[in-house]
Amino acid sequence: MSDPARMAAAVEAYVAAFDAGDPDRVAALYAEEATLEDPIGGPLQRGREAIRAFYAEAMKTGAKLTLEGPVRIGGDYAVFPFSVHLDYDGSPKRIDVIDSFRFNDANQVVEMRAFWGATNMHGF
Amino acid sequence: MSDPARMAAAVEAYVAAFDAGDPDRVAALYAEEATLEDPIGGPLQRGREAIRAFYAEAMKTGAKLTLEGPVRIGGDYAVFPFSVHLDYDGSPKRIDVIDSFRFNDANQVVEMRAFWGATNMHGF
Repeated sequence: MSDPARMAAAVEAYVAAFDAGDPDRVAALYAEEATLEDPIGGPLQRGREAIRAFYAEAMKTGAKLTLEGPVRIGGDYAVFPFSVHLDYDGSPKRIDVIDSFRFNDANQVVEMRAFWGATNMHGF
Repeated sequence: MSDPARMAAAVEAYVAAFDAGDPDRVAALYAEEATLEDPIGGPLQRGREAIRAFYAEAMKTGAKLTLEGPVRIGGDYAVFPFSVHLDYDGSPKRIDVIDSFRFNDANQVVEMRAFWGATNMHGF
């Protein structure tokens, strides 16, 4: 079992690393064999290197994350609501997202799923 | 594929039926063969009748739900942050939760998972 305090700290580190535009720091939170599905229903990224590349692309948009409520932690999961803010085509955009992280015993993320879709995109 | 507007309506109906203290109305949102895991990591309830009984017990606490942000909808999932409010031992309590609903093509919930744990319980 992972520890709730360490899982919460990983979420905080994730948001900070994403907002710093640092894909290596984000990828370091993941296990080597982790999977990432963002958005839910989209293609599955497998392995830390594919995940690092995914974040490097995402960060090119200049997107920043804002937590929108407490991190929910139960079992091996940390799940958290947030908003993504970016400028695109000359105007500010917002996407409302909930991410779920499943952790291994080493407090690495082994499965990430990002829940959002067309109804959560504002200003596009 | 389920439809985002119908999934969003099901979430609204769920909160209204729960707050009305009506386990039959809540259970009617589920598929016959649905599963429910609340809290995540806890025992799995299988089938609409077990799910109905679970809600009937939960409602005995007088708990009420308040949505705490937009419902995130993607693929077959609707995921939403909310708080649970109840009076227990003479004082008000709050639990912060995120539920995930997975829907079938008939817009019935086939899998519910409730993400929360000890760090999300306030006033206990």
